[in-house]
Order: sequence, then structure tokens, then C-alpha cells
Amino acid sequence: MRVYLDNNATTKIDPLVKVKMQPFFEDLYGNPNSLHQYGMDVRPALNVALGEMYDALRVPDADDILITSCATESNNAVLKGIFFKYILKNPEKNHIVTTSVEHPSVLDTLLYLSDFGVDVTYVDVDENGAISAEAMKAAVTDKTILISMMWANNETGMIFPVEEVSAFAKEKGILFHTDAVQAIGKLPIDLTKTNVDYLTFSAHKFHGPKGIGGLCVKKGKSLPNLLHGGEQMGGKRAGTLNVAYIVGMGLAMKQTVNHVQMMNTYVRKLRDKLEDAIMQIPDTIVVGPREMRTPNTILISLRGVEGESMLWDLNKAGIAASTGSACASESLEANPVMSAIGEDPELAHTAMRLSLSRFTTEEEVDYTIDVFTKAAERLRSISSTYAYTNEVA
Amino acid sequence: MRVYLDNNATTKIDPLVKVKMQPFFEDLYGNPNSLHQYGMDVRPALNVALGEMYDALRVPDADDILITSCATESNNAVLKGIFFKYILKNPEKNHIVTTSVEHPSVLDTLLYLSDFGVDVTYVDVDENGAISAEAMKAAVTDKTILISMMWANNETGMIFPVEEVSAFAKEKGILFHTDAVQAIGKLPIDLTKTNVDYLTFSAHKFHGPKGIGGLCVKKGKSLPNLLHGGEQMGGKRAGTLNVAYIVGMGLAMKQTVNHVQMMNTYVRKLRDKLEDAIMQIPDTIVVGPREMRTPNTILISLRGVEGESMLWDLNKAGIAASTGSACASESLEANPVMSAIGEDPELAHTAMRLSLSRFTTEEEVDYTIDVFTKAAERLRSISSTYAYTNEVA
Repeated sequence: MRVYLDNNATTKIDPLVKVKMQPFFEDLYGNPNSLHQYGMDVRPALNVALGEMYDALRVPDADDILITSCATESNNAVLKGIFFKYILKNPEKNHIVTTSVEHPSVLDTLLYLSDFGVDVTYVDVDENGAISAEAMKAAVTDKTILISMMWANNETGMIFPVEEVSAFAKEKGILFHTDAVQAIGKLPIDLTKTNVDYLTFSAHKFHGPKGIGGLCVKKGKSLPNLLHGGEQMGGKRAGTLNVAYIVGMGLAMKQTVNHVQMMNTYVRKLRDKLEDAIMQIPDTIVVGPREMRTPNTILISLRGVEGESMLWDLNKAGIAASTGSACASESLEANPVMSAIGEDPELAHTAMRLSLSRFTTEEEVDYTIDVFTKAAERLRSISSTYAYTNEVA
Repeated sequence: MRVYLDNNATTKIDPLVKVKMQPFFEDLYGNPNSLHQYGMDVRPALNVALGEMYDALRVPDADDILITSCATESNNAVLKGIFFKYILKNPEKNHIVTTSVEHPSVLDTLLYLSDFGVDVTYVDVDENGAISAEAMKAAVTDKTILISMMWANNETGMIFPVEEVSAFAKEKGILFHTDAVQAIGKLPIDLTKTNVDYLTFSAHKFHGPKGIGGLCVKKGKSLPNLLHGGEQMGGKRAGTLNVAYIVGMGLAMKQTVNHVQMMNTYVRKLRDKLEDAIMQIPDTIVVGPREMRTPNTILISLRGVEGESMLWDLNKAGIAASTGSACASESLEANPVMSAIGEDPELAHTAMRLSLSRFTTEEEVDYTIDVFTKAAERLRSISSTYAYTNEVA
């Protein structure tokens, strides 16, 4: 049996999406910017796809949806756009507020820009992995130009107070960006009802292809291009359009948003079943209250069990999980969210993430419970730290 | 009959490439940065694809090939990387030499950066659309940090003196970038034998998918990321890898380079046949000597015939051609290369580009000759400017 429980890293392509993309790898290969029939042939499907995205996130017609190659590009476009448009021209307004648990594409970009005069405040999470709206507000100064805060955390699934902080930002005349990569399809998102100026998304997190994403930009809040060049996307993001993937992303987003309720009933129930079973194992911590998390995510720490070792035992049994963000997986460092939470450093090395999708089945969850429980026993039986801890306890 | 003669805008996907990508839209959906089996399953194919690219362009093992989302991204990465690494830190070296006929992703990026202290010299083409190596060298000053020159022009097919100018750049300690998008598969490229520091390529110009490209970076010449974030591509280009398209691009590049000889025999012969037939039409100009052009391209001007009108007549007969770069097609401005060549402004409005591929057949060329010749007669018969010109002549 193979069980994929790493859906916060990437997801299986919805079979309908795959079928929908096929013609664009065959006869429908025209460049949509070309004036001839081959170009015209592909435009209706592009328009449909963009319409699906506007509908799915309830983006006002006046706003832009820029198609990018990934969430990383979208996040870089916002932060570097702010740098070029505002900070480089007026260093008096050089302050950005963010959280210490953003995706590397936010944190590394800000770290890079801080060499060029950008001043960043990183607001920490509490012991639940939560971000306090009050702490975000308190970090703002009269030099603040932007607040960037993810909508839901990739590792814990914790939902951050985007509505409240974006309303505050608007009131103060501060721009507001959210990386919503982990929120789409899990929470209802309605951009007619928020004060978000920039919203990042990525298709491969919701059963679309890898290598395509987007950025919603509020009317009047355009930034300089990250990619200058041709007149694609109204001149706001150059580069020949990846027609197949845009068409795929439109359908994938429509499908995933149509399944938000299923995510919050069927998937949530499976996740809770899995979590309840794991919590039966002694000395186990799950980060964050369930009701504050996206319905598909569990970040667990089993005292005395290295995350890597558990990953390996699960993997041998055909189960895919992770110790944290795939984007940082090559470094094998302590889980950064666990470190931010400030738990015992040992716990950071024992963190494991299980993330489900609407394609996860109950049979897969039952199998995982069985494998996981046995693996925990086995690994603790050979763990010197766990035995030692128990003896002194 | 449908005939696609707009291969410099984009190309049909090689059917072998399409087949090769399929598994990555199905079961092989793991994130290659993940440590579990789903991640491991996709890595061998990625390694094969990168190996195909290193082999195809004869990139030295010590150099980097960074995968990007398109040539536009690669060109932006070089120019903005130079800006951040050198010019922003040392405004004394703020000069870039380029040509006036680069792709918009170079020209628009430089135009944007010139607002932030970058000084650019644009070297013009001569009446053949050629760039003189001497003129490029003469444009260099002691403030020059970079020369950026395309390898072959997208509109005329004219091949630019990359070897000579890059050797000069190396001698002077100046960095050298080439946008080789139109050269790959048309000229043999061997990066072990050039002094190119940065080379841009794009899969959809050589029968790969749209939305994937790359940048070769000479050892020791790394630039700051355009996309900061995760540790993909050795930390030099963040963003989850588009596995399907990378695999497709590897095979497409291998295939296209394996067909360089066919391009220079079979395709060249078809192109010459088409060109010879068109030159039989009176008052026709083809830009650039054949032997100085890529073997698949013709840029023609028929006095008295609007490029748009000819495009429309061809299109009605099922033939796809263009009036110039698709990346600028929405503007309907005069063809920029024709303008740069400095011909009669009328000629710029009469420019038409025909670009073949290895999938073009002789039957298609014969049909095009027939349609094109009749369309030229018809359009001239209703052209007031052509009749007028003939009367006064």
C-alpha cells in the first residue's frame, strides 16, 4: 500500500486537470499573443481559466490576477516590487512587518533585501504556533510600508488572523500581503470581503501542476514587474504564457474551492481520527488547537523519536510524510516552526508533519495509524534518549 | 490545409516530449525535494534531463544550469542580478552595452533599471540587420560591467558575433550575457569553447513546453537570485521544481540539438525555396544575407502591402505567420527591427516574418508559395500606396 500524507508539500494532479491540459500539449500549441488562428485558438480556454480563478477567490473584476511560475515568484514579486517602488526611492519608509514562520520565499527575500536598507520586524508565534493580531499591530511603526503574513502556516496548519490585521493595515495606510498557498481549498476565501492588497497562490498545492501560481493585486496597488519584457498579463508579468498549466490551474482551483466543504467535513474527520490515534501514544505533542488549524494538517512531536527515523520507518511501509517544509528539506536542520515555538530543542528534531487531501481514504488512515503506532514503539525501544528520559522521570 | 510558419514565436511540442512528460502528471507527482519515496521516484528523471542539457550545449560540469520559468525570467535574473550585485553597491561601474534589437525582456528591463542609475548604450544594427563586433567593442567604457547581446535575432534570424565580442569582454574583464533563445537547434553551441558567462534559453522555442527555460552560469559568476526562497537549484533559483516540464525540456533540447544538421540542410533548403519564390514578387525586400541568418527565418517586406493585411490573407488560408515578435504583438506598432534598420517607415509596417521548423514539409512550403504569391497580387491590386508609388516611379 502507498499512502501520500505530504499534501502540504505538493499534491497529486486532479485527473480532470490532467485531461483538460492535454490538448495544449498537442494541436493547441499557439502562442496566445499571436494574431493568427493558432494564437486565437487558445485564447478562449485562457479566458475561462482566468474566470474560474476570479470566481473561486471572489476577486473583484477591477483587481488583477497575475499568473506567475510559482508562489515563490509571487512572493518575490511583492517584496522586491515594494523595494523598488517605495523603499529604494524613499528610505524613510523602509520597514516591513512579517512573522518568523513565513515560507522561505518570504524570509530569504527579506533577509536579502535587509542588506539594501530594508528594516524587518519578525513577529514570533506563541507556544501553539499562533500569531497574535495584537503583536502584529504593535510591531508597526510610522516607517512601516508593508505587512506580509501567511494565511495558514505550512507546517502546523495554524490559521493566522489575516482579516483583522489586514483591516488594521488598511486603516493605517499600510500595504498588506498574504501568502495564501496553504489556505486555498481549506478555508473559504472571499477577496471582496478582505483588505488584502496582494495574495499569493500556487497550483501544485491544490491538485494543479507544479510550476504555475499567481498573485492577486488590488486595484490601484500595482507594483513594478519582477519580470519585465513582453506585454503579457497587461504588461504586468512578462513571459510567454504557459497555456496548458494556466488552463489546468483554473480548473484545479475551481475544483478545490468546490471541495472546501468536503475538506472541512470528510478530510477533517479523517485527520481527527488519525490525530486521536496518534495522541494515544504517550509523550506526544500536537502543535496548535485543532479548531485553529487547516483541516488537513497535523504537526506532531514524539519524545525520543527523531523525525527522520520515523519518516524512514513510514517510508519503508509506503507512507509519505515529512519533517517540515520540502523547500528546506535538504538542510536537515531543526524544524523552524518548532524552533520558533520555543519548545525544547529536542522536540524540534522530533517534529513530523502529516498532511491529508481530499483524495486520502479512510483505509489509508487506518493503515497509517497501525504503521505509525508500531514504528513509535520500535523507535522508542531503541532510543537511548527516550529510555533515559523515562528513567529519570 | 494548416501551415505553421511562426516557429520563432513558439513551436509545436515534439510528440516524444509529450509522451515523456505524461507520467509526471500521473503517479510521479512527488516533490523532488521531499525525502520520501514519492520524492525519490522523480529524481532520476530530473538528473537525466539536466544531463541532457549539459550535453546538448556542452556546458562544462563546473558551470551551473539554473532552470527558470522562461527566457524572460532568465534575462531578468541576469540584468537585475548585475544591478543588485554590482551597480547598486558600486555606482562607478554602472554601464551596460547591448543592442537596440534585443528581446523586450532585455530592453524593458534595462529601461526600467535606467531609472535607478544604470547607464545603457544601445548599439544599432546596420541595413542588413547585422551587429558589428567593432561597434560593440567601441561602446565599452571603463564603467562597463556587462555586455548583453542575443546570439541570433528573433525577427531577422541574423546571427550576431557572440564569439568575438565575448572574447573581447573576457579580455577586458567585462561580464558577457547572451540570449540564445533563437540560436539553440539552429547553430551548434559549445560552451566549452566560448567566453559566455550567462546564456539564456527557452524550451518552447525548440519543441518543448511553454513556461520553462534556463540560464547557464559560468563557474564563479553567480548572481544574486531573482527568486529567493527554498534550496532548489543549489539555492540559486527557488521554487518547487516543475518536474514534468524539466524532463520535457531535457528531451526537447537533446532532440533539437541532434537535429541541428537537419535544420541546416533540410529546413534551410525549404526556407531557401520559399525565399526564392517570394523574391520573384517585384519590390520585395528580404532582410539580411542568407548565410548570416539562422536557417529557418525570413523577414520580408513587400512594398505597398501592410504586414497585417498579408497576415490576414495567409491566416484565412490556414497559414500562420507574424509581423514580428509575439511578445509585442498586442501593440501593433511598426516592426522594431525594421525601424532599427532605418528603412523607409512604410517598410516597417510591411514587415512579415516566416519561420520554419523541422516539422515543416515541402508540401506546406509549396502551398504557402502559392497562397503568398496570390495574396501579394490581390493586396497590391487594392493598395493605393503601391499603385501610387508605381505611377510616380
